[in-house]
Amino acid sequence: MKKIEHIGIAVKNLEASIFLFEKLLNTTCYKTEEVENEKVKTAFFKQGETKIELLESLEIDGVIAKYIDKKGEGVHHIALEVESINEEMARLKNEGFVLLSEHPKKGADNKMVCFLHPKGTNGVLIELCEEIK
Amino acid sequence: MKKIEHIGIAVKNLEASIFLFEKLLNTTCYKTEEVENEKVKTAFFKQGETKIELLESLEIDGVIAKYIDKKGEGVHHIALEVESINEEMARLKNEGFVLLSEHPKKGADNKMVCFLHPKGTNGVLIELCEEIK
Repeated sequence: MKKIEHIGIAVKNLEASIFLFEKLLNTTCYKTEEVENEKVKTAFFKQGETKIELLESLEIDGVIAKYIDKKGEGVHHIALEVESINEEMARLKNEGFVLLSEHPKKGADNKMVCFLHPKGTNGVLIELCEEIK
Repeated sequence: MKKIEHIGIAVKNLEASIFLFEKLLNTTCYKTEEVENEKVKTAFFKQGETKIELLESLEIDGVIAKYIDKKGEGVHHIALEVESINEEMARLKNEGFVLLSEHPKKGADNKMVCFLHPKGTNGVLIELCEEIK
């Protein structure tokens, strides 16, 4: 693992939350992006070497909408940057962690990503991500 | 804000979670510490410039025990390192955020800390922290 690449936060209203986090972090949102296959729109902030990613669901039955219905707004996942996502997926599978996809998928912010089942990680949804070169 | 100093994760059993996170992060826990006034024992991992702090309650009615009873294990708070905690507390209070203490308190890992009410921060419990010089 190289670093914490970002912290993903589930929000109901992206525009209102961008305004809020700009005040909180005393910095500006530097990018917004829609990720069609995840049904989310996202907004990014830099905090040192780590990003904060706000996520609003594009659809009423999207993953983020369902998460908020169940748990409320808050931290949705933590993303760990890795050198080789395929190698880390193999290592973690071998260690007994449960991967939520067989192969890496295209995520936001030019990354290949894979999630680990939070039941095996103390309730924390962990994303592995590798920058697409 | 300088960086994300650490991510605090509430766990039921610190020893088991240290073992789990050593496998997950492929690194060793470098420090454990008890924080009497917060009624927790903690374990730290480095991930780039950010730490992951596991927290187990020392008492059945401690803050972390109550959190787990209500929400289950998972991310408890995100700590932002600041140059001057007093200045940041004044700035954020002025911006309308609700501080959970009037003055900074002594936290784990040689820090003065203050928390913001999560109702004002999209459900995310934010800790401000300043290293004690």
